[in-house]
Amino acid sequence: MQHKLKIIPLGGIGEIGKNMTVLEYEDNIVIIDCGVSFPDDDMPGIDVVIPDMTYLETNRDKIRGMLITHGHEDHIGAIPYAMEKFRCPIYGTRFTNALIEHKLDEHHITGVELNDVAPGDTVTLGRFKVEFIKTSHSIAGAVALAITTPIGTVIHTGDFKIDLTPMDNEPIDINRFAHFGTRGVLALLSDSTNVERAGFTQSEREIGKTFESCFAQAKGRVIVASFASNVYRLQQVADVAIAHGRVVCFQGRSMEQIVKIAQELGYMHIPEDKIVRIEQLKNYRDDEVCVMTTGSQGEPMSGLFRMANATHRLNIGAGDTVIISASAIPGNELGVSRVINQLYEKGAEVVYDRMADVHVSGHACREELKLMLAITKPKYFIPVHGEARHLKMHADLGALMGVDPERIFVPQLGGVIELTSRKGKMTETVQAGGVMVDGLANIEDAVLHDRKILSEDGLVLAIITMDSETGRLCAPVEIISRGFVYMRDAEELIHEATNLITEEARRFEGAPKSEYATIKNIVKSRLKNVLYNKTHRSPMILPITIEI
Amino acid sequence: MQHKLKIIPLGGIGEIGKNMTVLEYEDNIVIIDCGVSFPDDDMPGIDVVIPDMTYLETNRDKIRGMLITHGHEDHIGAIPYAMEKFRCPIYGTRFTNALIEHKLDEHHITGVELNDVAPGDTVTLGRFKVEFIKTSHSIAGAVALAITTPIGTVIHTGDFKIDLTPMDNEPIDINRFAHFGTRGVLALLSDSTNVERAGFTQSEREIGKTFESCFAQAKGRVIVASFASNVYRLQQVADVAIAHGRVVCFQGRSMEQIVKIAQELGYMHIPEDKIVRIEQLKNYRDDEVCVMTTGSQGEPMSGLFRMANATHRLNIGAGDTVIISASAIPGNELGVSRVINQLYEKGAEVVYDRMADVHVSGHACREELKLMLAITKPKYFIPVHGEARHLKMHADLGALMGVDPERIFVPQLGGVIELTSRKGKMTETVQAGGVMVDGLANIEDAVLHDRKILSEDGLVLAIITMDSETGRLCAPVEIISRGFVYMRDAEELIHEATNLITEEARRFEGAPKSEYATIKNIVKSRLKNVLYNKTHRSPMILPITIEI
Repeated sequence: MQHKLKIIPLGGIGEIGKNMTVLEYEDNIVIIDCGVSFPDDDMPGIDVVIPDMTYLETNRDKIRGMLITHGHEDHIGAIPYAMEKFRCPIYGTRFTNALIEHKLDEHHITGVELNDVAPGDTVTLGRFKVEFIKTSHSIAGAVALAITTPIGTVIHTGDFKIDLTPMDNEPIDINRFAHFGTRGVLALLSDSTNVERAGFTQSEREIGKTFESCFAQAKGRVIVASFASNVYRLQQVADVAIAHGRVVCFQGRSMEQIVKIAQELGYMHIPEDKIVRIEQLKNYRDDEVCVMTTGSQGEPMSGLFRMANATHRLNIGAGDTVIISASAIPGNELGVSRVINQLYEKGAEVVYDRMADVHVSGHACREELKLMLAITKPKYFIPVHGEARHLKMHADLGALMGVDPERIFVPQLGGVIELTSRKGKMTETVQAGGVMVDGLANIEDAVLHDRKILSEDGLVLAIITMDSETGRLCAPVEIISRGFVYMRDAEELIHEATNLITEEARRFEGAPKSEYATIKNIVKSRLKNVLYNKTHRSPMILPITIEI
Repeated sequence: MQHKLKIIPLGGIGEIGKNMTVLEYEDNIVIIDCGVSFPDDDMPGIDVVIPDMTYLETNRDKIRGMLITHGHEDHIGAIPYAMEKFRCPIYGTRFTNALIEHKLDEHHITGVELNDVAPGDTVTLGRFKVEFIKTSHSIAGAVALAITTPIGTVIHTGDFKIDLTPMDNEPIDINRFAHFGTRGVLALLSDSTNVERAGFTQSEREIGKTFESCFAQAKGRVIVASFASNVYRLQQVADVAIAHGRVVCFQGRSMEQIVKIAQELGYMHIPEDKIVRIEQLKNYRDDEVCVMTTGSQGEPMSGLFRMANATHRLNIGAGDTVIISASAIPGNELGVSRVINQLYEKGAEVVYDRMADVHVSGHACREELKLMLAITKPKYFIPVHGEARHLKMHADLGALMGVDPERIFVPQLGGVIELTSRKGKMTETVQAGGVMVDGLANIEDAVLHDRKILSEDGLVLAIITMDSETGRLCAPVEIISRGFVYMRDAEELIHEATNLITEEARRFEGAPKSEYATIKNIVKSRLKNVLYNKTHRSPMILPITIEI
């Protein structure tokens, strides 16, 4: 029998978010990453989306472990949900594990086995031997994986860029990728996020110059908004701020927590006497202060948003310099633009990515992706972590770099890629997709659909009260609307609708209870027509019959 | 008495959209533009926003005319609403007026006086003498205005770029701006949209090279998505398509209408035998076809969207080349990205702005804005058409170009800028803002607020039926939810809530009717708490008491 390795993507395919990939060999499974994605416009009110893990639940006995490449939400966010369904040991670097631990605590989940690993370490999980390789990314503790199976080595890059002058002075371990490339790589799974961008991503260190010049010119407070998890960025800003005689104050719950963790684990090195709490800022002149906060995406409850809207103790105004050290993630452009305008209106100086180099990406651009392909020389190539267009472009890049096009697989969610040492093919599809998590409970499509209608055209209730013995109307029909038209302006419309429903309901007086459903449907359709004709709107209509 | 000119912005300030500016001298008013803006995320279900025109209604007797700089929606969209409130003659170029006429027809508004003007024409409106100056923009028939008043000339650029090789071979009339500049310009009102961008906007003609190379390589059909109103772009694509032996087919109602108007008025010149209807496409090979369609912003009902989703007769697939000849307008990025992914998934080749020069902006970048300031040498400078940050940056640019900073006014919506030949100041504020237009009726903030809650957390109804004589509950309490939790999954929660409400309602049995409001409030607050604790959601709660 030919030995087979199955590679099954359960997330991160056709989207940037909720990464999860399964490797299966005989009765051994390892899972790579376990992330969430955040909802888009079509899903109002939904908190997060997690991968459908039915396949893993069904095969729970085979699971040998979960490998986490780094601590971003789209790689660790679904771990608490996974650990409610099945248990397995988790492997990550110290910083990654500290973030996972924090997340498990929030969900009150205990007893999960978290194993700290360092780049260069190897662990054996069933038939898999896993080596962790240092990479560069916009978070500390990122690693790639070299997973050696009985039929060859699979390299999963995780999210990466090739930063040769990173803030932690430990560049991505190119030589280790080269080692595997020279020995022979069965398959490469590589990050496709930035495949649209030509060239080479700038080094994190390059933007230090911009911070230098901003701090040199700033006369008042400097407020920097960034991602909480980008501890290299926070370190870099803190270094410049301190060099310019400022203390630093971290704002926002997530930022304070991550800084605490990073300081404890040695990923950040800011002298404790230079970190101040918000209450202490009054002891310093404005030009002695640097505030670092969340809200670089214009999120409504974030630090920066509240500072711009005067609902935070730090009310930003004239004299302040605000640096937004991030790019807008697709979908957040309007929110970011609004915050920038608000800051301008309040008289602050604002420095953002369209104006100056205040941000670099954490993902590899085309030249870096080519380098990864050139070094690892994979037999099979599977682009991951990208939307449909990214995966397709990355596949084309693989062909350009000499991978046999028949050995390049643009993966499908749940689509099993089966490799042997001789050939590869896409076989069956296992259950996969997104599971929406709403607050504490799962939510069904019906609810989403309702919300969408409610949000667009509102709701109209028609309440019909019937005497169950006589079958007669025993109270006036009531029409109640919310989010549809302003009731006081619409008296005539409501009056007309009430008369209509009363008339309809009377036609059914004396009808048996079994007819009530029909009454409701007729009421609904007549009301729908009259409201649409008068207002060109189609609210949700809810006929309610009360029986007494 | 010192004669005063009042400049009153009623729109287009602090936003890109619904442009409208009022010039008032003694008892003479002219209005510049009359546009709509489109709603943002915070206003689900609202169709368009128009300027508050209360000031104009109050001063209707002074209005001498309305000057329209070009036919984009944010400059003409509110004309039908204005013409319902007051009437005045309208002045625009032939193409602009044709679009206005079409819009008035749609609203069944007749009897509006539309006057065709051409660049170089002057009209006298009370104490104002208006000259129309040829400009370049992403629509045919765009003009700037030189409005000479008894105290000096005001230049309003409209939306413009400095295109020296435009498709209509008539570049912006720089010499006419220079004429006024040399004679002396009292005030310049200039387009701020692209002030964040350094350099010079590329000429429309430059992107012809990209189209050339796309058509040369395309093996199957070529589908180009663009704005319907950008007739220069449509002409350019048609020229290249025909040169490559293809016929052109326009899809989408707005595109077909605009092409018809532009062909009739001589703004487009496509041989009639090269334009085919969709039914005729079956007579041509795929490599003989070019389809032009709307949907460059990923709009859900547009041609491109439906072609990508197989809900259009032209189902895009493998072999097709799709060119998206536009940039995503802020807020549309996700929609555009989704359409691109869908096209890739269907196997089409997609060319879009991140990959190739398939679009140029219609607005002036910084070097062009500096040129406009240098030529017109205004005494007073008023940046218009921009969000807060654009206006501020453009004001700074004015100062850099030598305008006395005390004579630069960053305008406020409704803020009156009063100029005399000696001095200028910002005086009172008149009523201004946005009026939301929802389907056929105006809508109030309360309705919007309701929709927002409904869309996020849904709705829970608690129906309590009381006997009005005995004051006793006479039917079981009913709990109904929509968009909140899926009812079948939440039986326990609903059961608990029902018991709670029943208990509360019983405590009030026998209470006078006047207490019913109190009962409702208590029910509401207890239900709110229990639902929040169980689900971390705050749906809209609607207690309904039925009396029999």
